[in-house]
Parts: sequence; structure tokens; C-alpha cells
Amino acid sequence: MKKYRVGVVGALGAVGAEMLKTLEQRDFPVEKIVPLDTAENEGREIVFRGESVKVRTAREGAFKDLDVALFSAGEAASLKLSPVAAAEGCVVIDNSNAFRMDPNVPLVIPEVNPEDLRWHRNIIANPNCSTIQMLVALKPLHDCFRIKRIVVSTYQAVSGTGLAGIAELEGQIRAFAEKRPLEVSVYPHQIAFNALPHIDIFLENGYSREEMKMVNETRKMLHDDSIAVCPTAVRIPVMRCHSEAINIQTERHASAAEARQILEKAPGIKVMDDPSANLYPLAAELIGTDDVYVGRIREDISIENGLNMWVVADNLRKGAALNAVQIAETLVKMGLI
Amino acid sequence: MKKYRVGVVGALGAVGAEMLKTLEQRDFPVEKIVPLDTAENEGREIVFRGESVKVRTAREGAFKDLDVALFSAGEAASLKLSPVAAAEGCVVIDNSNAFRMDPNVPLVIPEVNPEDLRWHRNIIANPNCSTIQMLVALKPLHDCFRIKRIVVSTYQAVSGTGLAGIAELEGQIRAFAEKRPLEVSVYPHQIAFNALPHIDIFLENGYSREEMKMVNETRKMLHDDSIAVCPTAVRIPVMRCHSEAINIQTERHASAAEARQILEKAPGIKVMDDPSANLYPLAAELIGTDDVYVGRIREDISIENGLNMWVVADNLRKGAALNAVQIAETLVKMGLI
Repeated sequence: MKKYRVGVVGALGAVGAEMLKTLEQRDFPVEKIVPLDTAENEGREIVFRGESVKVRTAREGAFKDLDVALFSAGEAASLKLSPVAAAEGCVVIDNSNAFRMDPNVPLVIPEVNPEDLRWHRNIIANPNCSTIQMLVALKPLHDCFRIKRIVVSTYQAVSGTGLAGIAELEGQIRAFAEKRPLEVSVYPHQIAFNALPHIDIFLENGYSREEMKMVNETRKMLHDDSIAVCPTAVRIPVMRCHSEAINIQTERHASAAEARQILEKAPGIKVMDDPSANLYPLAAELIGTDDVYVGRIREDISIENGLNMWVVADNLRKGAALNAVQIAETLVKMGLI
Repeated sequence: MKKYRVGVVGALGAVGAEMLKTLEQRDFPVEKIVPLDTAENEGREIVFRGESVKVRTAREGAFKDLDVALFSAGEAASLKLSPVAAAEGCVVIDNSNAFRMDPNVPLVIPEVNPEDLRWHRNIIANPNCSTIQMLVALKPLHDCFRIKRIVVSTYQAVSGTGLAGIAELEGQIRAFAEKRPLEVSVYPHQIAFNALPHIDIFLENGYSREEMKMVNETRKMLHDDSIAVCPTAVRIPVMRCHSEAINIQTERHASAAEARQILEKAPGIKVMDDPSANLYPLAAELIGTDDVYVGRIREDISIENGLNMWVVADNLRKGAALNAVQIAETLVKMGLI
């Protein structure tokens, strides 16, 4: 079996660390692992498969001997280095927002639109975390009933902001417990005991960029600009795993029972849906899991053809690192690297 | 000016305490205050207008010398004692779910349907907290544009469960900070760092009773059974103030600017809406406030006539105690007690 030389750019970040762990856990055919990060971290070490590996600087020339590189070093680094890596013959799977809406770059969730990988030109974009878990849950229903409109409210974890987000919430929680004043630095407002309807920057139309990602990425991956999406993205004091309250309107009628049956058979999904036994997906209990969990599946009582559901996934795994590794696995399976 | 003999049933609970504070702060014309609670609390004391007052037992006969009683002692106590108090000639303003959908009991938000107070028969129901803040925000828009459908996701505080809910979250937060295991007793699952799509019990149709309250109470108070409401009610680790992501579909088109103008002039509402300056309503910053705060007002990009907004209010004030006191004030103003 062919083995690959794999780079991880942003290896010391929250998602980068999860990428390395995921490559190990899923036994990706790694010939050589190359952790890359900013120059000031040159020489620091990470552990991969029990061995210490030195972190190198992500820069021109660093990608020449790599087959594939998973990028999670932020938008600026991706904009600068992804084209460099691609030109050096390395296939880039980029977790940032930099290339997601670029018509020359496929945006892929392996369960949703693997076929788009065929036209990659050495850069493939990994979608936004909130979009990934929403579309894994909705694609099987879209195939059966055709989704016309989605209204979604998110309950997003601080790890979406990386290690700094986690540290901010932990710090505020500790300050609260010790009756000290809470310090605010990462978010514009206190995140402990709060709900911030503000993720990423705000755009001209009054929506946040996080919200518009859910609109535009959905249309790109489902190849259907007529799908209407109306999102509200909210950060809440949860460490890890995003939750979403999703309402869909479909062309054909779907009963809750039919939807449940379809989702139970769908790839990458676990149905967890028995409210009378207090069973529904919960952020705090699904940390480290790989699937998208769906519960509270119920018919919309306000329109003819509608469904509601509650969707939870680990934003660092399926929402980021795992989806990127699955893209790499699919490239291997399809013979595209 | 006439003064009234006022009882507060459940005076030692979270809402009861807030009721006493609200009566003081708003200078309700109180001749005599009578705090009432269960028999085991007989003789405990509360402070009202700087004076200690002994708690009496809420039971038959206790309402004979009262003009009005604010009840917040849970559904069972209300079912048992409200009819007793009413028969003893005391007007009951009941904060529980017991009588809300009773066709012989008006369900009232003073900003929304004060006229319903005219037909009270000594029991008036105070609506559910989530419904109150939603309808205060939506009524002025309904009057102008006619609302056809509401899709709402809630982000509800633990104080909705009373003092026990607050203690549970505080306890789990302290345990986390001290690296002890988290204890779970009030909620079916850990509430710290979690989002529970479960408030009140689940019903046959897959919705929680909290969710169905928002459907049924909306129709009752707007006197319109055609209004379609599709709610998802979620508890999050916030101490106080509920937040709601509300999407409405209207008969006539409303621009975000028009909606903002209308809401700015409406009673009981404060518009707080300048996302580019990080200004939107926030649970952690609105504790103890009386108004319903509305922000993130934006046109729905998924349908012709739609609006989104983010609505926050203190669930113990406008969502419970304040609305009950405002009902009493309105009764006085209308000459109904």
C-alpha cells in the first residue's frame, strides 16, 4: 500500500493537534509526518505515533517533499502559503475560510459531495464547522425530500476560536469560582454565563460572516443556489462540540419516522433520539466522537412539509480535523493523490 | 390613592423574592404585604421596605383579608390554592402553568393584551417566561405586518428552574474549577458547558411542554389560532436572562429599518442594535433590567417577507415577577381591583 508524506500546518494549534491525533487514530498511511508552524515555534516538538518530531517553519520550499498538507493556521497563512505548497506539488487541504468560495477550489464533505474532489488543482477547502455538521445531517434528507429552506440557530463552543477561546472560558470560570473579576480579551464580551450572537465579523447585510458561510457553503456543496438558508450563529459557554437547532422545509412530505429511518442508515450519522428517556445529543458528552449526532427529530407543527432536529458534533473533529483527514482518505481511495 | 393588601405566595423562591423586590421598586400602592409559603417556612422572615415581615402558611383562610395575591409556588400549589383564594375574594395573579390555557382565565402581558383583564373571574395567569419576551417583541410587528409564522430557538437561563437551578450550575462550575467531579441532580444531565434541548417534560408530539407553551400561549394572547409557531427550547449555562433567536414570516413586507423604527417606539422594548460596534442584547449584561431588549434585526435572506431578531430579557423580571406586578398595576389603572 502506498504511503504518503504528510504535512500539518499549524501543528501546535487546537485543530492542528487534533489533525495529528486523527491521522494516528485512523491509521492514515503516513510515510513521514512533518509538523509545520510559525518560525518562532521552529524546533518545538510534537509526538506522533510515540515518536518526537521537530516542528519546522511553514515557508516556501517546505512543501517540496510532501504529498499532502493539512492546513489549519488561519486565513492569512493559508492565503500566503497554500498556493506556494500547491505549486510545489503538494495537495493542500485547507481548513481556513481563504478558498472556500473560490470557484477553482472544491469544497468537500466526503459524505456529501466527494465527486467534487475530481476537479481539484492541488487545493481543496475544508468547510466551516457549522456547515459540515448541518450538511452531513441534511444531505440524506435533501436527496429524499428536497430541502427548500433551512432556518438554523447555532449553539457554538469556544474551541471554535482555538486554544485561546478555551483558555478564555476556563479563565472566566475560575475567576467566577474564586470571586475575582472576569477578564475579557478573546471575545468582545464575557463568554461565561452568556450567549453571544456574534461569530466572526459582521457584514453589510447584518449577518455575521459565520452565518453567511452557512448560506454560501451549503449552496456550493449541494450545487443548488435555490436552497434558502437563514442562520443565526451564537457562541455559548461550552468547551467543545457545536449544537444546532435546525428547521427545514421540504418539497415532498417527510414524517419524523421516515426521516429517522433515513438518517439511521446514512453515513457519518448517529441517531440519538428518545426524549422520553432523556436521550438526545449533548455537547458535553460527545467530545472526541467522530459522527454527527441527530436527535429531537420531529415534524414541524407550523407548516405542511417541515422537520425540526437537534444536531451535535465535535467541532474540532468532524467540524475540522476529521473532515480534513477524511478528505485525504477519499483522495487516496479515489486515486487522486 | 387606594392602597392594597398584597399577598406573595412562594415568597421564599427565586421569583417570589423578585416579586417582593419589584413591588418595592415600582412603588406599588401596598397597604399591607403578606408573604406566604409552605407550612415548614411559617415564621421565617423577609424584609419589605426595610421592615421584617413574618412568612405565613399559604392555606385556606389566608386570603380573606387580601385584595390581590401573586402566586409563584409551582403548579400543584396553584391548582390547589388559587381557586381557594379566588373564592375568598382575592384576585390571584398566577405565575404557574396551571391556568394559562383555561378558557375562563385571562392570560395577559400588559403590553400585548391588557383588554383581556376585563373578563377575569379572580384568577389571571402570568404567561411562560419565553412567551412573554417573544410576544412583547413581536406584537408591534404583528400589528403592522401580520405575522404568519414564527420559528424560534431559545437559549434559556438556569434561574428558570428557580434557586435550585442556579445552585446546580454554580456547584458544577465550582467543581470544575476545583477539578472535582460534577454533581448532577436538578437537570437530567450536566448543565455546565452543555446545551440541553429539554425544558419541562416531553409530550406525545415530540415537543417539550415548554415549546408547546410558546405555541399555545401565543395564539391565546394574540387571539389568532392561525399563527404558526415552531419552537425549540434549550437550556444553556447562563444564570439569568433568556435569549431567543426569532425568525418571523409576515403577510406584508417589513424592512429591517421599518421594524427597528416600530420597535423603538413600542412599550416595554429597548432596541440595542449596532453589531458593527459589538452592540446587541446580552444575557450576562441585562440581569435586573425591566425591558425586553431586541437586536440583530435583519431581513430574512431566505424568503420574501421575513425578519430575524435576537431578543433578551430577564426571565425573573419581565419573564415572571415584573409581568405579574404589571398585571396588578394594570388592574388598578383599569379599576378592576
